[in-house]
Amino acid sequence: MQLRRVSILGVGLLGGSIGLAVRERIQGCRVVGYGHRAQTLRDALQVGALDEAYEAPGEAVRGADLVIVCTPVGLIPSLLEQIAGDLAQGAIVTDVGSTKRSIVAAAEKALPRGVHFVGSHPMAGSEKRGVQFARADLFERAVCITTPTERTSESALGKVESFWQVLGMRTTRLSPDEHDRLLADVSHLPHIVAAALVAMQEDAAFNLCGKGFVDVTRIAGGDAGLWRDILLDNRDNVRRSITRLGEEMKRLETLLETGQSDALAKWLRDAAERRQHMLERKQPDE
Amino acid sequence: MQLRRVSILGVGLLGGSIGLAVRERIQGCRVVGYGHRAQTLRDALQVGALDEAYEAPGEAVRGADLVIVCTPVGLIPSLLEQIAGDLAQGAIVTDVGSTKRSIVAAAEKALPRGVHFVGSHPMAGSEKRGVQFARADLFERAVCITTPTERTSESALGKVESFWQVLGMRTTRLSPDEHDRLLADVSHLPHIVAAALVAMQEDAAFNLCGKGFVDVTRIAGGDAGLWRDILLDNRDNVRRSITRLGEEMKRLETLLETGQSDALAKWLRDAAERRQHMLERKQPDE
Repeated sequence: MQLRRVSILGVGLLGGSIGLAVRERIQGCRVVGYGHRAQTLRDALQVGALDEAYEAPGEAVRGADLVIVCTPVGLIPSLLEQIAGDLAQGAIVTDVGSTKRSIVAAAEKALPRGVHFVGSHPMAGSEKRGVQFARADLFERAVCITTPTERTSESALGKVESFWQVLGMRTTRLSPDEHDRLLADVSHLPHIVAAALVAMQEDAAFNLCGKGFVDVTRIAGGDAGLWRDILLDNRDNVRRSITRLGEEMKRLETLLETGQSDALAKWLRDAAERRQHMLERKQPDE
Repeated sequence: MQLRRVSILGVGLLGGSIGLAVRERIQGCRVVGYGHRAQTLRDALQVGALDEAYEAPGEAVRGADLVIVCTPVGLIPSLLEQIAGDLAQGAIVTDVGSTKRSIVAAAEKALPRGVHFVGSHPMAGSEKRGVQFARADLFERAVCITTPTERTSESALGKVESFWQVLGMRTTRLSPDEHDRLLADVSHLPHIVAAALVAMQEDAAFNLCGKGFVDVTRIAGGDAGLWRDILLDNRDNVRRSITRLGEEMKRLETLLETGQSDALAKWLRDAAERRQHMLERKQPDE
């Protein structure tokens, strides 16, 4: 599809980076955006992430071929309702939310016939916030998960996947349920654990933090409001993940308690090797 | 003190890096080393970490002013017994072990009168192993904990601290008990958690790993044998740390369960801010 007009709702780090990438990579496409603060829109125009900026979402989506919702997870459902009446026939809507069940359900409910929704979760980002940190190459070599349902148009799905591929991403498909379950394990739980490792430390321990601790807890520096929304929205899966981690810790504790030296070394070695395989599979070209 | 002869027992990453740093920074000091594999000693000589190499620890410590035991934690007590009869009167012995209670107790028992032991834990390193990764600047700006007891000579303690400072470290003192308790929280527990986060993942989740997961689990790549020794040696404290983390996770789970949105955001924000303060305090000059 030749995109003529891409609309970005919410121009923070992700939305801004999408804008920069589209303006750099898709010839003849106009990038328009909505933000609820005038200053953010001025910044987005200034860094070159947008061609046009609007303070009303309905205006920003008018005539767009592709609309990408980039606001925090908690705001997406109401925003979809707001824009429903302003979307062009045949428009494709996607999002960048870190949870998918509630967003996909809200979109399929809110959007009119003739508009196609495809859930997306581009797994790129940083602890940094704001359009001033936007980078056109933010998405390169990262994975974008799309979450089609039985109601998803195959053609719209293909177009959304092509879009992320143009931005440098590898795409993969999961159901919204599967997405939220796996992401609880691989993303939401690690975030909680990182924060809990910080929260539990005595002050005296902080002077002793080495590089290991700094790395383990890096993601705990993320935005609290964004993560609150993600964790609450996915709380059933997150609680299941917490339980599963507790079971794994219990296994390890039993090995320690009973002094099973060989089994303990094997447990540690298996984890190190499994991680190494993951890295090799993940980054074949790096 | 003008060091004339420093003896390094175990020339892996840490021992090798000490050797490189001493040869670079302490004029007129000879660096001798022991390793139980001939190939390791040849490598250590080749990278310039040692002036002389011995395959027997007793020979390597003869005439040394300062002996630094750099073998894995589990081997330190028996090595101290082996060298006890070969140490010069007035020699100072220290180590780089990641646990301190058992090592300090073993040293105070094994070493003869007229030889001074000071426990050290230089908190530097990497997941890499072996003298081929040794670097003279490995210790710069990192913290070295010394663990004096009532039997420690104040003068020997001062000399060991000066030594680490010459290598670029900041030194701080803790009792062996306090060291092992705090390190369980800030180092041993994060290692276990990183490995457990890898161990619990379904295969399908690995394709979805982002940079966050790679960072959180980086330390799980460490050497299994070394970590087995550390965890078993400090198992009482490690189990206490596991329990404390479980309590913190339980607090978070309750916030999720009861949907306490504001309290959840505060918990996340407090962790992010506390980590930020830690980084600022830790690295004033970086």
